[in-house]
Amino acid sequence: MSRYLRALRRLPVDRTPVWIMRQAGRYLPEYRATRERAGSFMALCQTPELACEVTLQPLRRYPLDAAIIFSDILTIPDAWGLGLSFSEGEGPKLAHPIRRATDVSKLGILEPRESLAYVLEAIRLTRAELPEHTPLIGFSGSPWTLAAYMVDGEGGEFPRARRLLYEDPGLAGDLLDRLAAAVADYLAAQAEAGAQSLMIFDSWGGLLAPEQYRAFSLAPMRRVVQALKADPATADIPITLFGRGNGWALEELADTGCDALGLDWTVPLDQARARVGDRVALQGNLDPTALFADEAVVIAETRRVLDAFGEGPGHVFNLGHGIRPQVLPERVGTVVETVHGGKAAAEG
Amino acid sequence: MSRYLRALRRLPVDRTPVWIMRQAGRYLPEYRATRERAGSFMALCQTPELACEVTLQPLRRYPLDAAIIFSDILTIPDAWGLGLSFSEGEGPKLAHPIRRATDVSKLGILEPRESLAYVLEAIRLTRAELPEHTPLIGFSGSPWTLAAYMVDGEGGEFPRARRLLYEDPGLAGDLLDRLAAAVADYLAAQAEAGAQSLMIFDSWGGLLAPEQYRAFSLAPMRRVVQALKADPATADIPITLFGRGNGWALEELADTGCDALGLDWTVPLDQARARVGDRVALQGNLDPTALFADEAVVIAETRRVLDAFGEGPGHVFNLGHGIRPQVLPERVGTVVETVHGGKAAAEG
Repeated sequence: MSRYLRALRRLPVDRTPVWIMRQAGRYLPEYRATRERAGSFMALCQTPELACEVTLQPLRRYPLDAAIIFSDILTIPDAWGLGLSFSEGEGPKLAHPIRRATDVSKLGILEPRESLAYVLEAIRLTRAELPEHTPLIGFSGSPWTLAAYMVDGEGGEFPRARRLLYEDPGLAGDLLDRLAAAVADYLAAQAEAGAQSLMIFDSWGGLLAPEQYRAFSLAPMRRVVQALKADPATADIPITLFGRGNGWALEELADTGCDALGLDWTVPLDQARARVGDRVALQGNLDPTALFADEAVVIAETRRVLDAFGEGPGHVFNLGHGIRPQVLPERVGTVVETVHGGKAAAEG
Repeated sequence: MSRYLRALRRLPVDRTPVWIMRQAGRYLPEYRATRERAGSFMALCQTPELACEVTLQPLRRYPLDAAIIFSDILTIPDAWGLGLSFSEGEGPKLAHPIRRATDVSKLGILEPRESLAYVLEAIRLTRAELPEHTPLIGFSGSPWTLAAYMVDGEGGEFPRARRLLYEDPGLAGDLLDRLAAAVADYLAAQAEAGAQSLMIFDSWGGLLAPEQYRAFSLAPMRRVVQALKADPATADIPITLFGRGNGWALEELADTGCDALGLDWTVPLDQARARVGDRVALQGNLDPTALFADEAVVIAETRRVLDAFGEGPGHVFNLGHGIRPQVLPERVGTVVETVHGGKAAAEG
């Protein structure tokens, strides 16, 4: 078993595994060229051959321990007809956000093998192309994070979605129930297509007050995890929950039945490990901003994260958020080499 | 002594004191009228009679336990000539952000009694107008939060300021040293003018990785607190540190020597209290979004915060962030009445 999958199971590894959130992304010139060829971000996502190509690009440069399928966290709302688009330099937008109860009630059962066939085909192509020992990660936005975009139509502080939780918790709960079922089905389909590890990105759960977080972010994620763990076809696929600004809830997240928690860069990794103990593996959490500094700083900050986790199994090295487009590609090489021990060995 | 000042000292009170961040603000029609008369937000800040007037407005409507001087967290960079302005519907902008080392070295000693005389005059006027039993709060942005705006020139994710911490920590440290001295002097001048409690708003410390937070956000705040506590003229003025997204650091914040911590709405108040014990009072932390719901929900959510703190002294009720402009004014009345026990008594 690869060291990434072993680490997620908290088994001993020869070296700490490392991959980088958004490793297939704009900091790579070859990505920008393929993106240009595709014409738009959505066309790149929706053309399996091109999505496969950009997924593989960072693996050709760096000895990364996992690939993550190139896609977006918001494919489900798009499949439901909400009209996802990206304009240059801005975040995602949904053309048809949810504005009333009937907008929720008319959301049908997601049939990911039909409406998201392009993602599944990209996974099949990529799995066939990847070296056998390199695991492929599938993913989705979390139910709450999808709901937030679906209600507000765009990123930011999500004022409409957050109001809805107080103003009409019944409707919000209905939406989140539908989303939990859709996310579980979608992730199961990704596993069937060849994804060997699954991630749920709850990028915006940290905006919520504790009780709201528990009811509308954590509980739907728990339902997704439990659905996947209850199905023999997916029971053995490790699941990582990534969140931002949810550090207070690490124990509760670890109790969802997931295998690992992805931590943002603001969480002290040593504190986090002390709190979750050996219940889950931890992924993270180098500050993406550190990659703007020179090589010596990148090495020192990478080591600081390794030291903060300390000895023993259960660490997957990563950034605490996606890599920035302006980062020099060689900085990623420095991170990978440092995590794998090369830089450390060379420099003492 | 008023119940607000008693609570900050963790002394028993007859009722939990309550005030609302941005209580003098756009949700009040009388504020909007005065703001209109002033012509601009900055003119309103810089005209002591008008700043005094809007500071007093919420006190005429609600039996609030404290007033906070109407001003902005970014007055120091403006006094240093960086050119603060606000355009409608957007956040603050600085016309002359810091771009190179000489921009830092040419920042002189802040002379708040000269360059920020308008704030001090507003405090004197307001103190003379306020009922004797109503304390007046003075405030400033924290050194890091000021630095973030000074380097990036506007709000957001502060990419330039965050890069600077890795790329040139020496220059960043120089800037933060100057800011710590300036904030301490400014707060001391506010106390001299009549402010009976001081707050430091570290709105953006939560963007930083732990070591960076400790070095560039927490340490400069500690220096401000220690300077004020070392000066007999300000040693007895309670100091509250407000932060967002810094929940992991509550113990370290409590150890700065401050009197109280202001918590954002995402921190579980019961957890926070268990962690800081009786070292500091706690202020907060109702989700500002809850005020969009109907009265019954506002009462229930207010009580949830009171219950989360529990019995015993040391709680100052507030929102976990500033009140939103679109909130109905009567919702504030509901919060205040509920905290003071009226709604609770009436409804069982």
